Amino acid sequence: MMLLGRGLDARDNQTRQMQDAVSNVEKHFGELCQIFAGYVRKTARLRDKADLLVNEIYAYAATETPNLKVGLKNFADEFSRLQDYRQAEVDRLEAKVVEPLKCYGTIVKLKRDDLRATLTAKSREAKQLSQLEKTRQRNPSDLHVIYQAENELQRATMDATRTTRHLEETIDNFEKQKIRDIKNIFSEFITIEMLFHGKALEIYTAAYQNIQNIDENEDLEVFRSSLYPPDYQSRLDIVRANSKSPLQRTGSSKSSLRTAQISRRMLRKDEEEDEEEDEDDEEDDEEDELDTTKEVR
Amino acid sequence: MMLLGRGLDARDNQTRQMQDAVSNVEKHFGELCQIFAGYVRKTARLRDKADLLVNEIYAYAATETPNLKVGLKNFADEFSRLQDYRQAEVDRLEAKVVEPLKCYGTIVKLKRDDLRATLTAKSREAKQLSQLEKTRQRNPSDLHVIYQAENELQRATMDATRTTRHLEETIDNFEKQKIRDIKNIFSEFITIEMLFHGKALEIYTAAYQNIQNIDENEDLEVFRSSLYPPDYQSRLDIVRANSKSPLQRTGSSKSSLRTAQISRRMLRKDEEEDEEEDEDDEEDDEEDELDTTKEVR
Repeated sequence: MMLLGRGLDARDNQTRQMQDAVSNVEKHFGELCQIFAGYVRKTARLRDKADLLVNEIYAYAATETPNLKVGLKNFADEFSRLQDYRQAEVDRLEAKVVEPLKCYGTIVKLKRDDLRATLTAKSREAKQLSQLEKTRQRNPSDLHVIYQAENELQRATMDATRTTRHLEETIDNFEKQKIRDIKNIFSEFITIEMLFHGKALEIYTAAYQNIQNIDENEDLEVFRSSLYPPDYQSRLDIVRANSKSPLQRTGSSKSSLRTAQISRRMLRKDEEEDEEEDEDDEEDDEEDELDTTKEVR
Repeated sequence: MMLLGRGLDARDNQTRQMQDAVSNVEKHFGELCQIFAGYVRKTARLRDKADLLVNEIYAYAATETPNLKVGLKNFADEFSRLQDYRQAEVDRLEAKVVEPLKCYGTIVKLKRDDLRATLTAKSREAKQLSQLEKTRQRNPSDLHVIYQAENELQRATMDATRTTRHLEETIDNFEKQKIRDIKNIFSEFITIEMLFHGKALEIYTAAYQNIQNIDENEDLEVFRSSLYPPDYQSRLDIVRANSKSPLQRTGSSKSSLRTAQISRRMLRKDEEEDEEEDEDDEEDDEEDELDTTKEVR
């Protein structure tokens, strides 16, 4: 009797520990899932801003002198390509990090069912035990009734042992799978992030050349040619004589003149409008907060 | 007279072109500044989420078996180090990209002053021209008055020419500086981003090993030992016999037993609380939207 009582206590303790283990995973995987999802969301917001930047660089480049135009356009092309990789990063993080963590919601529920089944079997065993004790006290000589109660207790104990054994197996597998999943999820996170950072280095290396290749002097000649018609050449000469560096007079103004068709028909925009646009932008951010899919494209 | 009139027209046209050039820079540098500032802000928000992730990984690691505990803690250390580099990225982008673009607000204002001075001088010249014409029509024989008006026109023309020449110089320098600044700002942007991406690759390489080194089997032994007291060893054997892989039975359970002190005293948190926390978090985002400094640290 004493031994059986201790056995029940020890098993209760063990079930409580299992419950705690499952609750701990529920709590922390839940929080990790939320924060990773937030991280992915902010990455998507960063991509949105980068997309706006791409569009604005294209718009600005269109108004500029030939070298700036080409250099900025090429930079924007590369930077836009990088945002495609950022989008891939977002999609992969969603699929390989957030989703597997989200699955633990269901996994934890199933483990709770197993725990509940074990607790039910155990409480039935405890009830049969107290039933047997009562029977022994009330009818100490009725061996038939005592024998029946002993039989029922034995059945309940076997049932409790069976479900407990099943629970032990299932919790063991749960723990095993959890460690594997944690390793997988973090390995995937690191791999996905590294893929993006590697691509970023590659793309920025090309983009850097696009900016470095912008010929300042040639563009300056184009600007001057567009500003001063031929009969203003003398005044232009005065301006040039005043410019400090003699290097700046080496640009080919003949070839520049041909490309001097700079579109200056741009829409004037009030500062107020810009502010409104920015507010809209922030509102969008709020609305999109829970959605990591790409709205801008 | 006709020549002088054409000269005025040509110069008016030239001044208009200069005004357009300045307005174009005002518009596009203003928008670039806003979008780059948004990009920096979103990067800071991403760092905030990563900081939350670091804290949660530490909190979870503290509740785990020894190998997971150490592996996750080391990963969080590296990931936290990466956020310091992200903060440096934010600070550098603010100083080397957003600030120089912001400066164009002042630069454009100064150029507008120069343009205004030129326009004033030109309108004075035009006024003197019509004054001279009126004088000639009204007093065609009063050579003294005509001479005086001619003198005044000459002074106004010289003044207009002087301020126009100054404007030409200043706009020439403005254009020169603008091309240089655009090249500098985009080069800085690329360099700062590359520095961060390079560091990220370096840090993730180390972090990957921390995750890969987590010994699943040793931790599983620790988990089992914590769950089953010595008198439950027979039941543990049953569980082990049921586990599929024989490799999982090789862990040293002696050394594991010593480290089995796993803290399971964790706070239970309702899902509702998590949701509230997330809302707070989003509210913070809105409040912080205009502030890229680091609040979390």
